Amino acid sequence: MGELALIEQIRRTFQGRSRGVSLGIGDDCAILRPPARHEILVTTDFSLENRHFRRDLHPPSSVGHRCLARGLSDLAAMGARPLAAFLSLALPGELLRTRKGQQWVAGFFDGLRHLAQQHSTPLAGGDTSESPSGLILADIILIGTAPQGRALRRSEARAGDALYVTGSLGGAHAELTALLAANRPSRAKVSQSHPHFFPQPRLAVGAALLQRRLATAAIDLSDGLSTDLTHLCESSHLRAEIDAAAIPLHPLARKLSASDALNAALNGGEDYELLFSAPAAKRIPSKIAGVPITRIGTLHAASAKKPRILLNRPGERPTELTPGGWQHFA
Amino acid sequence: MGELALIEQIRRTFQGRSRGVSLGIGDDCAILRPPARHEILVTTDFSLENRHFRRDLHPPSSVGHRCLARGLSDLAAMGARPLAAFLSLALPGELLRTRKGQQWVAGFFDGLRHLAQQHSTPLAGGDTSESPSGLILADIILIGTAPQGRALRRSEARAGDALYVTGSLGGAHAELTALLAANRPSRAKVSQSHPHFFPQPRLAVGAALLQRRLATAAIDLSDGLSTDLTHLCESSHLRAEIDAAAIPLHPLARKLSASDALNAALNGGEDYELLFSAPAAKRIPSKIAGVPITRIGTLHAASAKKPRILLNRPGERPTELTPGGWQHFA
Repeated sequence: MGELALIEQIRRTFQGRSRGVSLGIGDDCAILRPPARHEILVTTDFSLENRHFRRDLHPPSSVGHRCLARGLSDLAAMGARPLAAFLSLALPGELLRTRKGQQWVAGFFDGLRHLAQQHSTPLAGGDTSESPSGLILADIILIGTAPQGRALRRSEARAGDALYVTGSLGGAHAELTALLAANRPSRAKVSQSHPHFFPQPRLAVGAALLQRRLATAAIDLSDGLSTDLTHLCESSHLRAEIDAAAIPLHPLARKLSASDALNAALNGGEDYELLFSAPAAKRIPSKIAGVPITRIGTLHAASAKKPRILLNRPGERPTELTPGGWQHFA
Repeated sequence: MGELALIEQIRRTFQGRSRGVSLGIGDDCAILRPPARHEILVTTDFSLENRHFRRDLHPPSSVGHRCLARGLSDLAAMGARPLAAFLSLALPGELLRTRKGQQWVAGFFDGLRHLAQQHSTPLAGGDTSESPSGLILADIILIGTAPQGRALRRSEARAGDALYVTGSLGGAHAELTALLAANRPSRAKVSQSHPHFFPQPRLAVGAALLQRRLATAAIDLSDGLSTDLTHLCESSHLRAEIDAAAIPLHPLARKLSASDALNAALNGGEDYELLFSAPAAKRIPSKIAGVPITRIGTLHAASAKKPRILLNRPGERPTELTPGGWQHFA
């Protein structure tokens, strides 16, 4: 299989018409047509073998799913609707030349397509190459739209706002830990019970937060609550207090010891839930688009005397919470 | 230097305000504001070490320049104006930890920034990672705009149209051949006389072709005239005849033997000139935006009895020209 055959496979796998795409795969550029009076949102995310996934542990459909989920989650965090995705994909020669390799590639596209269809996201272009290192390299680009001036930012939270998270936390870390301990390939299939392999980007929640003007600021929990809440606080020039007992734990995290579960929820990352702020007096539904919403704390005016994030635990002294999540160059 | 320091370096290097960018580096997505009644054009292009460049031969400023030039050239081919660029960049740990490595990174950004400024292209976001293979991986994403329905496509050429190229061909291949023969690092600096290290994307020509409604179809010469003309013919369901003697040769190609020079022009690739079609009766200026325009042939209705491309050479029988350019998985 050469590059033209690979591009043809991508074109066949992702064929279909979409209102927002005037011209898809096959020219120097794709042409997108956003709705009038909308802004364009853009995010890019690497999925690199041995950095973001391992070929010997992750099913290929999970690699494809997670690749797209990372980008969709960034759109969700700003309340945007997906317009199109683009994929730059470099594959080792053996994946194109062997039957087993081609099965891997087909599984990767299956996982990506399944999630793309769920969220009406056409794949409109990208680039392909042979990978010079023998490692799989993917870069996903998501283009979304939001009404002008309405996208949710990290920087617009205000002192006094309440802090909320969607869904439950710590599941991705708990599943990953079990995966690494088992150290053998997983055959996990798409389901809500696989928070690491198949995280669900919260696009419907993000869109509702924007449309119904519920949130003042939002961010997705890709790097872990301790890290992402720090980003939100820094961008908004605020500090936060959160209650450990209020943090909703994923069922897989609840199987761990209490301290491991809390660590997974605070620092595990890759849950792809949303963290958002809203005025404390605003009535926030207990569910949005079917996803539970939980209040976990409050934002305050920043103070040189107080830590950026204070963690309250029942029966203990409040402690400072520092960013303990994903360190990209650690 | 960790990831946050790298992102800070990128932010500093590319800081500046732009009308089209509502929100740049630092949130989950960037926010772009395209002009009203315009479409969005998107292209992504890998620049992978040992595939598209070699660290031991290419100056880092050339790697940065060529990375951006590839994307800008795709916009030029469709007559689009750049709105913003995004960069996904994975670096080996040693490039961040050593002084020499940091110099490489600074040189890469210098080359990219210099070209970005020339074409008023803000860098509005992207992704960073440590490269698991130890090889540098870059993926550049260009977002451009064109008035609705007006972008130049490969598919709209008509039988009888004349074929034109911008500038001159074969220079990039001639320079690359010399580079590989010398097999030592180059210290080339930005100038028109380095067609391989510092190719000039033809954005002003592309924009003029669109605005003045001169071209019926266009494509950029990234893979070589024989390959890219085949793409244009296939997309437009036509065949072509071109005259070898009419092809404008770059001064570096003219130093080669006649057959090597013709091969460099036809199959060398990476010249990043434009190939476009226009009605034969249409008056095409001899220069557009200061760049020479040369007629090299004619398009005809496709025929099962005739080759896709016929090459006429003075004093010889016409021969079939097959795609001999860059084969991505060869």
